[in-house]
Amino acid sequence: MLVKVFVTLKEGVLDPQGKAVENSLHSLGFGGVKEVRVGKYLELSLDVAEAEDAEQQARRMCEKLLANPVIENYRFEVTG
Amino acid sequence: MLVKVFVTLKEGVLDPQGKAVENSLHSLGFGGVKEVRVGKYLELSLDVAEAEDAEQQARRMCEKLLANPVIENYRFEVTG
Repeated sequence: MLVKVFVTLKEGVLDPQGKAVENSLHSLGFGGVKEVRVGKYLELSLDVAEAEDAEQQARRMCEKLLANPVIENYRFEVTG
Repeated sequence: MLVKVFVTLKEGVLDPQGKAVENSLHSLGFGGVKEVRVGKYLELSLDVAEAEDAEQQARRMCEKLLANPVIENYRFEVTG
């Protein structure tokens, strides 16, 4: 099973990396860009047969390691 | 328009961060995890009216700043 995980900063959490990207985009002439937020995107392969098991494991992985639940949200997709 | 950008390392490019995550997941008991790849996920708001303009700008932003075309692939989604 392929699992795609998206980790984003929660609303209200400062994102200096996003701000830096936004400023650089403005400098490059993309004046219409606002509210850049930078997160993480992970792909991993899971050796389980059932999508349900994969979802359960993915949720635990996010809670234990992949996301910091204090400042980050996560979501994931499990595909064939 | 909201633009979601996904930047991933190309096939064959070493991903030490992914390897570190994989090892940590193994240590935590997730033995079935293989081939972890870590990429970037960006959300940005674009002040344009047409989806077509947003796509064009997003492509140029990826090529100029958000992705390194030598070692990274990118894809993006434009939503209302």
